Amino acid sequence: MNQRKRFLAILGLSLATLLAVQGAQAQQAPKPEQLIKWRQSAYQVIAWNTGRVKANVDGTYNKEDVIKAANAIAALANSGLGALYAPGTETGKGWKETAVKPELFTDKKAGEVAAAFNKEANELARVAALGDVAQVKAQLGKLQGTCKACHDDFRKKD
Amino acid sequence: MNQRKRFLAILGLSLATLLAVQGAQAQQAPKPEQLIKWRQSAYQVIAWNTGRVKANVDGTYNKEDVIKAANAIAALANSGLGALYAPGTETGKGWKETAVKPELFTDKKAGEVAAAFNKEANELARVAALGDVAQVKAQLGKLQGTCKACHDDFRKKD
Repeated sequence: MNQRKRFLAILGLSLATLLAVQGAQAQQAPKPEQLIKWRQSAYQVIAWNTGRVKANVDGTYNKEDVIKAANAIAALANSGLGALYAPGTETGKGWKETAVKPELFTDKKAGEVAAAFNKEANELARVAALGDVAQVKAQLGKLQGTCKACHDDFRKKD
Repeated sequence: MNQRKRFLAILGLSLATLLAVQGAQAQQAPKPEQLIKWRQSAYQVIAWNTGRVKANVDGTYNKEDVIKAANAIAALANSGLGALYAPGTETGKGWKETAVKPELFTDKKAGEVAAAFNKEANELARVAALGDVAQVKAQLGKLQGTCKACHDDFRKKD
């Protein structure tokens, strides 16, 4: 291989590496507006499913329906929603303007309320599988308590 | 208890029952706009998580991250998204106007593409747990194929 060919081969490899790295970074760093839209969506899905559990414990109880709803909530709680609060998402518009307070990004209590939500969501999935209505109702209350705790401290009022 | 008191007691019980039944029905039948908003949200959350899996197979692979994402997709696929396509949701605005085509509500193929999505989503969660990158990449492709199949047939173009 002569020097020119070697230079071109190295240049080609370098460009390929650079493009691959940039591609990966681009995929791993969605825009703040996208992150805000995803987190707003995630909480809507959680609201849908907590509403389903509530409708079951207040009305006709369908064990399978509650399991599906509780598993969806737990999987979202475990999915790593914190990544949707990356730096740069303190303000901005997803589906609508974010209602998050700046304190969420600085107050260490935020991590505690998030951990409490995860704990109660996983416990709801556990008791949903058992199918005892009173237990599910009590656990739904605990889960909703963690929602309210976060809203009270870290969500602006409508 | 005299007749008048008995009448009033029965009337009171009847009203309480009626209100309880109506309350349960009201909870179990959210408005079409709410259902559309929830389904739009669910697909955003699915897009977030398929994007995470893609970023992992194209870039640096993090097994735990892929498991979390795949489990979230599977839990949503298993959650009963079909309930969000209740009669009355053929048109309407959730976060935005629904892009669903009327055929989704009449074509029996819709059930088939939904079942295919569920199957591939659960398979993705299964292979994610094994942690083999090539297997996850191949399975992600199959899952995305079911997304595209549904979009091609049942989603209006932007």
